[in-house]
Amino acid sequence: MPKAAPKAASKTAAKNKKYVFMFEEGNGSQKELLGGKGANLAEMVNLGLPIPPGFTVSTESCTRFYDDGKVIESDIKTQMFDCLAKLEDKMGKKFGDVSDPLLVSVRSGSRASMPGMMDTILNLGLNDAAVEGLAAKSGNPRFAYDSYRRFIQMYSDVVMEVGKKYFEELIDEMKEKKGVIEDLELDTDDLKELCAQFKSEYKKKLGKDFPQDPKEQLLGATMAVFRSWNNERAEIYRRMHSIPYSWGTAVNIQAMVFGNKGESSGTGVAFSRNPATGEKMLYGEYLMNAQGEDVVAGIRTPNKISQLKEQNPEIYQEFTDIVAKLEKHYKDMQDMEFTIEEGKLYMLQTRNGKRTAAAALKIAIDLVAEGLRTEEDALCMIDPKLLDGLLHPQFEKKALEDAEPVGEGLAASPGAAAGKVVFTADKAVEWKEKGETDLILVRLETSPEDIAGMDVAQGILTARGGMTSHAAVVARGMGTCCVAGCGELVIDEKANIATIKDKQGNVVKVYHEGDLMSLDGSTGKIYDGLLPRVDAELTGDFDTIMSWADKYRALKIRTNADSPRDTQKAVEFGAEGIGLCRTEHMFFDFEGERRTIVVREMIVAKTKEDREKALAKLLPMQRNDFIGIYKALEGRPATIRFLDPPLHEFVPHTKEGVAELASELGLNAKDVQATIDGLHEFNPMMGHRGCRLSITYPEIAIMQTKAVIEAAIEVNKFATTAVVPEIMIPLVGEYKEYKYLKDIVVKTADECIKAAKAKLKYLVGTMIEIPRACLTADEIAKEAEFFSFGTNDLTQMTFGFSRDDAAKFLEHYYDTKIYENDPFVTIDFIGVGELMKMAVAKGKKANKKIKLGICGEHGGDPASVEFCHDIGLEYVSCSPFRVPIARLAAAQANIKNPRKVK
Amino acid sequence: MPKAAPKAASKTAAKNKKYVFMFEEGNGSQKELLGGKGANLAEMVNLGLPIPPGFTVSTESCTRFYDDGKVIESDIKTQMFDCLAKLEDKMGKKFGDVSDPLLVSVRSGSRASMPGMMDTILNLGLNDAAVEGLAAKSGNPRFAYDSYRRFIQMYSDVVMEVGKKYFEELIDEMKEKKGVIEDLELDTDDLKELCAQFKSEYKKKLGKDFPQDPKEQLLGATMAVFRSWNNERAEIYRRMHSIPYSWGTAVNIQAMVFGNKGESSGTGVAFSRNPATGEKMLYGEYLMNAQGEDVVAGIRTPNKISQLKEQNPEIYQEFTDIVAKLEKHYKDMQDMEFTIEEGKLYMLQTRNGKRTAAAALKIAIDLVAEGLRTEEDALCMIDPKLLDGLLHPQFEKKALEDAEPVGEGLAASPGAAAGKVVFTADKAVEWKEKGETDLILVRLETSPEDIAGMDVAQGILTARGGMTSHAAVVARGMGTCCVAGCGELVIDEKANIATIKDKQGNVVKVYHEGDLMSLDGSTGKIYDGLLPRVDAELTGDFDTIMSWADKYRALKIRTNADSPRDTQKAVEFGAEGIGLCRTEHMFFDFEGERRTIVVREMIVAKTKEDREKALAKLLPMQRNDFIGIYKALEGRPATIRFLDPPLHEFVPHTKEGVAELASELGLNAKDVQATIDGLHEFNPMMGHRGCRLSITYPEIAIMQTKAVIEAAIEVNKFATTAVVPEIMIPLVGEYKEYKYLKDIVVKTADECIKAAKAKLKYLVGTMIEIPRACLTADEIAKEAEFFSFGTNDLTQMTFGFSRDDAAKFLEHYYDTKIYENDPFVTIDFIGVGELMKMAVAKGKKANKKIKLGICGEHGGDPASVEFCHDIGLEYVSCSPFRVPIARLAAAQANIKNPRKVK
Repeated sequence: MPKAAPKAASKTAAKNKKYVFMFEEGNGSQKELLGGKGANLAEMVNLGLPIPPGFTVSTESCTRFYDDGKVIESDIKTQMFDCLAKLEDKMGKKFGDVSDPLLVSVRSGSRASMPGMMDTILNLGLNDAAVEGLAAKSGNPRFAYDSYRRFIQMYSDVVMEVGKKYFEELIDEMKEKKGVIEDLELDTDDLKELCAQFKSEYKKKLGKDFPQDPKEQLLGATMAVFRSWNNERAEIYRRMHSIPYSWGTAVNIQAMVFGNKGESSGTGVAFSRNPATGEKMLYGEYLMNAQGEDVVAGIRTPNKISQLKEQNPEIYQEFTDIVAKLEKHYKDMQDMEFTIEEGKLYMLQTRNGKRTAAAALKIAIDLVAEGLRTEEDALCMIDPKLLDGLLHPQFEKKALEDAEPVGEGLAASPGAAAGKVVFTADKAVEWKEKGETDLILVRLETSPEDIAGMDVAQGILTARGGMTSHAAVVARGMGTCCVAGCGELVIDEKANIATIKDKQGNVVKVYHEGDLMSLDGSTGKIYDGLLPRVDAELTGDFDTIMSWADKYRALKIRTNADSPRDTQKAVEFGAEGIGLCRTEHMFFDFEGERRTIVVREMIVAKTKEDREKALAKLLPMQRNDFIGIYKALEGRPATIRFLDPPLHEFVPHTKEGVAELASELGLNAKDVQATIDGLHEFNPMMGHRGCRLSITYPEIAIMQTKAVIEAAIEVNKFATTAVVPEIMIPLVGEYKEYKYLKDIVVKTADECIKAAKAKLKYLVGTMIEIPRACLTADEIAKEAEFFSFGTNDLTQMTFGFSRDDAAKFLEHYYDTKIYENDPFVTIDFIGVGELMKMAVAKGKKANKKIKLGICGEHGGDPASVEFCHDIGLEYVSCSPFRVPIARLAAAQANIKNPRKVK
Repeated sequence: MPKAAPKAASKTAAKNKKYVFMFEEGNGSQKELLGGKGANLAEMVNLGLPIPPGFTVSTESCTRFYDDGKVIESDIKTQMFDCLAKLEDKMGKKFGDVSDPLLVSVRSGSRASMPGMMDTILNLGLNDAAVEGLAAKSGNPRFAYDSYRRFIQMYSDVVMEVGKKYFEELIDEMKEKKGVIEDLELDTDDLKELCAQFKSEYKKKLGKDFPQDPKEQLLGATMAVFRSWNNERAEIYRRMHSIPYSWGTAVNIQAMVFGNKGESSGTGVAFSRNPATGEKMLYGEYLMNAQGEDVVAGIRTPNKISQLKEQNPEIYQEFTDIVAKLEKHYKDMQDMEFTIEEGKLYMLQTRNGKRTAAAALKIAIDLVAEGLRTEEDALCMIDPKLLDGLLHPQFEKKALEDAEPVGEGLAASPGAAAGKVVFTADKAVEWKEKGETDLILVRLETSPEDIAGMDVAQGILTARGGMTSHAAVVARGMGTCCVAGCGELVIDEKANIATIKDKQGNVVKVYHEGDLMSLDGSTGKIYDGLLPRVDAELTGDFDTIMSWADKYRALKIRTNADSPRDTQKAVEFGAEGIGLCRTEHMFFDFEGERRTIVVREMIVAKTKEDREKALAKLLPMQRNDFIGIYKALEGRPATIRFLDPPLHEFVPHTKEGVAELASELGLNAKDVQATIDGLHEFNPMMGHRGCRLSITYPEIAIMQTKAVIEAAIEVNKFATTAVVPEIMIPLVGEYKEYKYLKDIVVKTADECIKAAKAKLKYLVGTMIEIPRACLTADEIAKEAEFFSFGTNDLTQMTFGFSRDDAAKFLEHYYDTKIYENDPFVTIDFIGVGELMKMAVAKGKKANKKIKLGICGEHGGDPASVEFCHDIGLEYVSCSPFRVPIARLAAAQANIKNPRKVK
């Protein structure tokens, strides 16, 4: 009979296990155990830097805390108090001492930096007795009572969840009573009175006295930090940065030093290089007679760090020496906090500093020039995702900070767009022709028919669909800004009105055609009116980093592109070929060519002959498409996927549309309606699509083969390097499906080549996107010259959910931590990845020469690129704007895990 | 560059390989190589029986024939002519000889018996010269010319595809001219004249002379047999019996013996036991002065075999001795062909005889009693699928033979139904209440709302849906006859008219309410009017065989049942528990209880509180359901699956239905419509269903847990053996999904048990039906007490197609031999089966005690049962009427591959 697992003695508990570490017991490599801050404090202690002593309660204690039912068990408590005793010895002070009390700060510190996401408590250890001790020892009673009232307020807020505002109200009342404006104008007695008021407010709200036992305070604060690991903003941050919930946070308990002990005291923050530009210079600010929060709070204007040189040259020199030491030690730009207590400098924290994309590139290159890092190490410093910001226009930072979003959707394709709202693709094209350049296309969802309108729009906003919806995929391919799946967007298609509501269903803003709107595709936020944009600008640093990346990577990088324009763009970004050309995007009206009607004629054809007649009209159009794409590729290879979506995606679904189609084709409307009705599917994703279409209608595969091959023959006539088309059969789940179509393709291709008296190398292979294809990859590989993993569909089928429908429950999955990140962003290594590994192993075993790649959306995700490198793929393919990201990620993967044969 | 595989030197060709075998070179074990007939002829030769000499062209030659582009390559030709020379030596006759020509028969013979599916040519070797030789040697010119004209006719028809009818017309003209009625009244000259006419007809149709070279005839006939492997009826037969296309057929070339050489000659067929009843007696018929086809043709009435005893006691004795020898040798009932040529008996064929289900049981039991077989061997003789016929009513054989079907659908649930057509479930219930017992429910497709109507119907016919559609699954569970997915059935739901069309779209028959129709659920055929039915009757033999099966099987057999009635039935058939109880079937109106409205109230609830209010109303209903089921189980275990289908299956979809619902619930119709619209899904199969429902609405899992546990506590109060409920969480793809719900279930269950001060053993486990669940089975197994494979969904997701949509392309897949059988009938061993094996291995490794079973439809398919046995499952679960099949199949599996620990 199942039992809820006994709470104690759970997974993470272990007898005599060490949970609490003095700073000097750790070192910088122990981020997993001590968290980033704890490990860095330990490292700095080891470096002999001036650090206030302290100890770290490990991340494993946090995991225990949750396993044990949100309590700190006695073994951990004991270890904490042991370390506390050591700290008291070190400082020569006692917790709660009436003459010279020990005060500590209690700060979170997880493995990965999560700035501001979790809680901090300062001045812990103060009580009615200790405050007197602090006053006596410091000779500064005002400072002591100010510290006490700050502590009561912070403890009440963070540990006991009594809102800050109640205390702020009391301060305001006091100031009013005293007729003063600034906090600093309150004197010792006022602050003493405020401490008394705060304590009685605490009792009023919580029904008990403010804790006078500093150990009780310490345990309370530690638990509060553990709990804050699980607060909403931490959770959102983790999800955004793929930080696992299971990591937990450590807690750092450190002796307080005070920057607010008068004019010889102070506090500041500094970067060792400019985080915006990367320039090598000390960059930061400080305030004398202040605690850390004052610098941030902006009540007084802090000084630039350079002023410290004049104000206190000795301290400044000491600080710059420490900065140099830390940079040399960490070989990276540092973000530091320091405090000066009565003329003595203390370092409170150092960490690798956050930086802009441009700064990241410059710093990496400078560190190599300075001899601190090798090119390989420098490449590994740069988060590939940062590059996105360099490639797309962005909103001006200041404007963005001031603007309040009116709504939010999925950040489906990065960039910034600002312009006039249009509701149909036709209207977008029409307005564009009239000279309107800045258009935002707002749709319920897009379909392939909208392609021309999407092409001219600066930004796209949809109400439905996820990260792999049509709008998202196409926009990313075009490099167009897109916010998708905004659930609070209601579109009245007849009236051309879009209404954005809030989560409660209240109307926030109504948009009519021509109204102004701005979209941030990097955050998913929607703004009213026009926000000013700054253009993307690629610097020489970008080229340097890319050339290094190319030097060190083993994976080839291809692109997913369906048009000469996209291909051109991708080649500029360094793509080495096309990994996925979706031919169905060519089945729609394009550049004035009326294709849709021909495609529909093919679909409603009753006989093979009629179908072939329509296909014959499509052939020259597709051939021309391929000619354009091959030319843009200049001899690079192109993987061309044959028709994939179910046919009902191409036909009209309104009564009027059907009538119009029937009349254009000279057919009976009722017949056409019946044919279209017959295309209905219960589960279109698992229906009549992919290779299944060409198996029922081989004439489609024949036409597409002719177009691919004839175009290649044509282009190769004049090319320096011959293009090698790679024909890709989609959705294969059984080798006989593949074999059947391959035979048709080869026969047709060889006939074309023979008829043209030409020579042409071409490959035939398949997309691996059905679980069964992975399971039977050995059989398929015997017949296929390449596999390309279609991880979008493979993920959907392996998980058994459709991305379009999953939105309904994924929120609950994130809330309950069942999923911590999105398997459509990063490959699910243990499920989908396992199938991929199986397919690679079976495929290579059956066909040593098989070429392996990936063309799903994951091909542009750094973690997935690394996985693809590790399992031995030859290339990844991604949308043009993600090519640089993939180049860098591929280099990092090969540096971490070098491939023997390049 | 891919090339179409070079045709010759293909897979199956090998230098110096032996393709042709004299009978005496083979033996009975070589069915794969020589086909069934060839192997048995070889075996009979080895037994010293009187067999006309001959040789066999192997099945591998047939595969070569197709690989080589439908030609017989020279290596095989040479071997054939070598054997022919040996045959000539043996017989002392030459092919085409003018004084005593060798004549041969050319017959197909594949590995599995496919009676009548392929072609035969007799009297081969006759030409204008040889016919004179035959006349001279036999002293019977009429016989010679009759043989020649028969040969020309057969060769033209079978080899050259000139229809028989042209020749029959010539015979009719001749008879008219001569003023006679019977063929036998034509004299030698008439036949000679007919031979000439036949030859000129041949030339007229084919533009060349009838081949006079017997070797050319031999090659032509051999190729014709090879080609017949691929004819339409053979293909359908293979698909019905899961015979792989790749097996090919052998060709047997055997010296002719003639039963038509006068009154001392004759021919006959006989079974060693009665194939209808199994009774031990010689059973068959013969005709003197006749060739084989005359016995079948029915022109003369054949004699019963017993008459031969009087007519020719010596031959009769020789024949019965041979029969005894063959039965002893093959240890099975034999189906034999023999010919007597001028007083000498020849055996032409023996094979294990086809038999009825009742005969199969009796023969197996008798063979054990006779000491010819052990119980194990006897069990292995019986095709488990045959048992179906014993459990369901069938149409009278004669009536069925005479009836012409008006249409055909999928044979979704076996049995025979004949009654009045009704178009709605309500009408069925209403008519049943008025005393109409024989009703056929005709629906476009059924939904859970139709359950009451399905329950009272004798048969169900649907236009849409496959073998795992709602109608099919529910009907099989109920044991109700069902024909599903009849594509040629058009239903006008408003007018209550059903029209059956033919494949060309012509109307065959129109049905109005109350019209009479018969359905054969075992063949999928639809008949007009009422066909007479015979009831199922279970004999003592059935019990004997079942008791033997139980003795030898290792697998336990459970049933899929959702009601006390089905449970009861399954227990009668030997079920040892419930493997799948689908709780959603209890969410519909049943036995007068208005549940649908409560379920809908739950679905449209806006808050958790409202949802809980509705669930509280459902709790006592579900609890009562479980009480009924537990009682029927009498202490056997029950696996209860929590709510699985997407919620939109439970709500009305018409405007009127929504308005009605809103008014019943006192809600705003627009609101209700919006809620229902919000339930829409693009791909419902991959949407918000299974465990995903209970993760978003844990209160559903809580209510269902209470119902399951409280019912068990209640029933166990009075039970001899306590029921052990097994709660099954569906559609798990990630262990955290399972863990999340398991914790809720365990907490709720333990609270119920505590509140009742009771003791109760229960299990919690999961259905394995998502590919990812197999891939991560180790993680899931750590938390789960059992796995039950849901192979319906697992097959859909592994193949990436939805059964409901696959009908559109599966026909093409069968036509092109991409699929040879239906993965929803028998587990796809290499794809889905591979995932199952992985899940079993990972699951057992992580949790040694894990209980493994299957509850998909495959649990009642013998080949799948064997697979489940082989991979080490503990039980299979299937619909009640398939329980006996599974019991027998499980025994056969364990006899073939015994399990160490039972």
